[in-house]
Amino acid sequence: MRIPVDRDSAVPVYRQVELWLRASIEDGALPAGTRLPASRALAAELGLSRITVVNAYAALEGDGLLVTRTGSGTFVEGRGGGPPLGAGATEWPLWQRMLPVPEKVTEPAWPVTDRPDLISFTGVGDTRLFPVKELQSTMGEVLRQAGTAALDYGSLTDGYHPLQETICQLLASQGIRTAATGVVVTSGSQQALALVCQVLLTPGDTVLVEQPTYNLALDLFRVLRLRPVGIPVDRSGMRVELVERALQQHHPRLIYTIPNFQNPTGACLSGERRHQLLALARRYNVPILEDDYAGDLRYEGRSQPAIKALDPGGHVIYVGTFAKLLMPGLRVGYLVADGPVRDLLATHKRAQDLTTSPLMQRIVDRYVTVGRYQAHLRRTTRLYRRRRDALLTALAADLPEVAVEPPTGGLFAWLRLPPGVTGNALLPIARAEGVEFAPGDAFFPDPADGAPFIRLNFATRTPEEIALGVTRLSAALRRFRGAAGVGDSGATPNGVGR
Amino acid sequence: MRIPVDRDSAVPVYRQVELWLRASIEDGALPAGTRLPASRALAAELGLSRITVVNAYAALEGDGLLVTRTGSGTFVEGRGGGPPLGAGATEWPLWQRMLPVPEKVTEPAWPVTDRPDLISFTGVGDTRLFPVKELQSTMGEVLRQAGTAALDYGSLTDGYHPLQETICQLLASQGIRTAATGVVVTSGSQQALALVCQVLLTPGDTVLVEQPTYNLALDLFRVLRLRPVGIPVDRSGMRVELVERALQQHHPRLIYTIPNFQNPTGACLSGERRHQLLALARRYNVPILEDDYAGDLRYEGRSQPAIKALDPGGHVIYVGTFAKLLMPGLRVGYLVADGPVRDLLATHKRAQDLTTSPLMQRIVDRYVTVGRYQAHLRRTTRLYRRRRDALLTALAADLPEVAVEPPTGGLFAWLRLPPGVTGNALLPIARAEGVEFAPGDAFFPDPADGAPFIRLNFATRTPEEIALGVTRLSAALRRFRGAAGVGDSGATPNGVGR
Repeated sequence: MRIPVDRDSAVPVYRQVELWLRASIEDGALPAGTRLPASRALAAELGLSRITVVNAYAALEGDGLLVTRTGSGTFVEGRGGGPPLGAGATEWPLWQRMLPVPEKVTEPAWPVTDRPDLISFTGVGDTRLFPVKELQSTMGEVLRQAGTAALDYGSLTDGYHPLQETICQLLASQGIRTAATGVVVTSGSQQALALVCQVLLTPGDTVLVEQPTYNLALDLFRVLRLRPVGIPVDRSGMRVELVERALQQHHPRLIYTIPNFQNPTGACLSGERRHQLLALARRYNVPILEDDYAGDLRYEGRSQPAIKALDPGGHVIYVGTFAKLLMPGLRVGYLVADGPVRDLLATHKRAQDLTTSPLMQRIVDRYVTVGRYQAHLRRTTRLYRRRRDALLTALAADLPEVAVEPPTGGLFAWLRLPPGVTGNALLPIARAEGVEFAPGDAFFPDPADGAPFIRLNFATRTPEEIALGVTRLSAALRRFRGAAGVGDSGATPNGVGR
Repeated sequence: MRIPVDRDSAVPVYRQVELWLRASIEDGALPAGTRLPASRALAAELGLSRITVVNAYAALEGDGLLVTRTGSGTFVEGRGGGPPLGAGATEWPLWQRMLPVPEKVTEPAWPVTDRPDLISFTGVGDTRLFPVKELQSTMGEVLRQAGTAALDYGSLTDGYHPLQETICQLLASQGIRTAATGVVVTSGSQQALALVCQVLLTPGDTVLVEQPTYNLALDLFRVLRLRPVGIPVDRSGMRVELVERALQQHHPRLIYTIPNFQNPTGACLSGERRHQLLALARRYNVPILEDDYAGDLRYEGRSQPAIKALDPGGHVIYVGTFAKLLMPGLRVGYLVADGPVRDLLATHKRAQDLTTSPLMQRIVDRYVTVGRYQAHLRRTTRLYRRRRDALLTALAADLPEVAVEPPTGGLFAWLRLPPGVTGNALLPIARAEGVEFAPGDAFFPDPADGAPFIRLNFATRTPEEIALGVTRLSAALRRFRGAAGVGDSGATPNGVGR
């Protein structure tokens, strides 16, 4: 009995055997009365342990599809005697029934409702600030200048070359010296993260991440069946003093870090820790994936050099994006890499989707080179700083019992709720009060660790909306405690305590 | 000596051991005079066969980095005694030096030169026909109607819902009945192909493909370290009578087919073969990936139902695109799947790049729903039919010695060159004469099989340009034979003979 078994599958082998036999019985290929091989014989034939076959037989017996008669063997009892596998499941081809269950991905943490009265502290940037008019005129200019060439594939290399050069110039201001050939343009920074995983990692590999970290990166790791291991974050970013033990214990194949205005905590990795992290990565031969999603969006203080800027060569892959400052819908990001990995990344990029929209690449390039990007950045920084201030003021006034570390840039404030309150329990009450946020569990390798936290995006709302939103949040918290019967006594301020 | 070894890597294990030792010697971590463990002891420690360690030591001895003294052991001889690993290679981190060499990807087969005098029978569609004005007004309408929402991420589900519904309606005309929830919008059809490979296949798996087939799909398979096995194509498409033996012999995990106006041959899979292929796929439990890149672009004859339309459920994943008819630069394609695999594909899509540009999705949706797409399709079909006719006329007149099967739709004509002539040898001479084409080798699992063929895209050129291009091709062929001393005697017409 030649049952196909895939040892690399996420589906346990006993389950594969079970599903194959189940389908064969249901198809009629194994009619009632058929005697199956003894478990020991089948195990030997398939090169499996006997217990695997025993488990498969037992599951089918439990469903009434097989029957074992002591002394004479295991027989097919009949078709579909047991409960169905699930709605419609038995109708799908066997290869479909053997697929792994999709990973649970998190709620994307931007507005899930279109209620105009809802104040949502989610999303990426304030859609009302998107430079739509400028985008349209830039597009018009691109089409006038490049004509239909802007709408063809372009060269299937690593990006629209003028944009690669423009990105180099932007990076030079952050101390990252690279040639245009080191830049690979991607469909948003998410694709850059995905390409790095595909090129460097295989299922089962461990990735060191900050804890908490970017929820959609965690989703990516889970979907690719990687194992994220978290290093706690404090106000100076990833606690690098804990990294060496993790390197020794978990043998990660990648270190993923968001050093500037970390998502979700807003923390910045200190200069000293940047050097230490790079030194550890070099000593332990582990690449660093540096996600600089909002490095330009600083409200005060001095910027630290990118880890990539400290890299003597080939240790760090740097990822950037235009989504956060311009418009997420552009889907233009990039990665910077040197060494052999750069060509591998470019080859995989081309295999994945040929090219990022040449029209969008030309639009972004022109938007930057004529100075619109820089002006937009200055305007946005001023505006978002005021919004951050409004949030901190409102929190101090209306929610003294939540702990928050003031972010010095970026989009996010990270709040620890009073004892006994979880983000997920608070959210429905908050929505009823007219305010929305991202619960903390999506940002942790183990979601349970995120229960006491919520993330607020202050960039998407005006100061007035922020004040009103915090008032509503405060009301929601009072209602929650009223309902839960939690006294105020336990609600003294509490360190961010990551 | 704890040498990290990755058994799943494309880099042979002995080479991993060699590279690790080499780096340690060059770093000074293993100074001159250090005694290495005996090969047997190291092999036991690492769980490797002894020959693996012996090979690694031998390579390092050959480079003068190790020396074996009979009776006393193997010792580090000194730093960098041998030739360098390659330019700059020793400077890269060890993990970079252990990466596999990128797969050679083919030339993309569209214009590589910007010479305005060159008649290039490459590319995808005629850029001069791209509806740029319509695109701009559609975009203006979308932005007026949707405002900045068009520039945000949109929901990170499986596409812009109205576009999914529009795609369902387009598919209904091809007999494919699906709910909008069965459609996943992708960044071009290439991403759809890539997602299917990622979800269903692992490195080393075999994919049955037509031979010849789409070069960028072959590239994708190679980059993902899959093994394409070719089934020859005749005028009725894939020779399905050869498929069963291939299924038994190669145990493929996927069948990839382009049933309509196959790229590159232009052949259409007959109705009978569609049924047979689906029956075989069901019997052998192998999914079919149906790539319908240009199903609408028919110049004569009756269209066959899509294989997906014959699918009783879950056996076929269908892939379509707007690139070929509208503009490749839009980067909007889609896949249709049902059963558990559909959710897996959607989950991977989101992990890969979050979403396909919501702006582009809205533009395509509006372009189709206001009827512009259908009008553009009718115009384009009329125009391309005349171009196909012009090509066949010119070939019959100027190049009777090449064999061609008249395509009934699509963009491509597939030519077998006279004996002794190869596409790659002819190309430089043709370029000198002012004409360009795609040599056949890029379209075969084994490139050598493609030597006598070339692919002409007739859609990108006007009838006048086509006539001139074929005259130039004829001149190039004469020059080639003059140079090669090939007589005309061997140049009798020849069946397409795939």
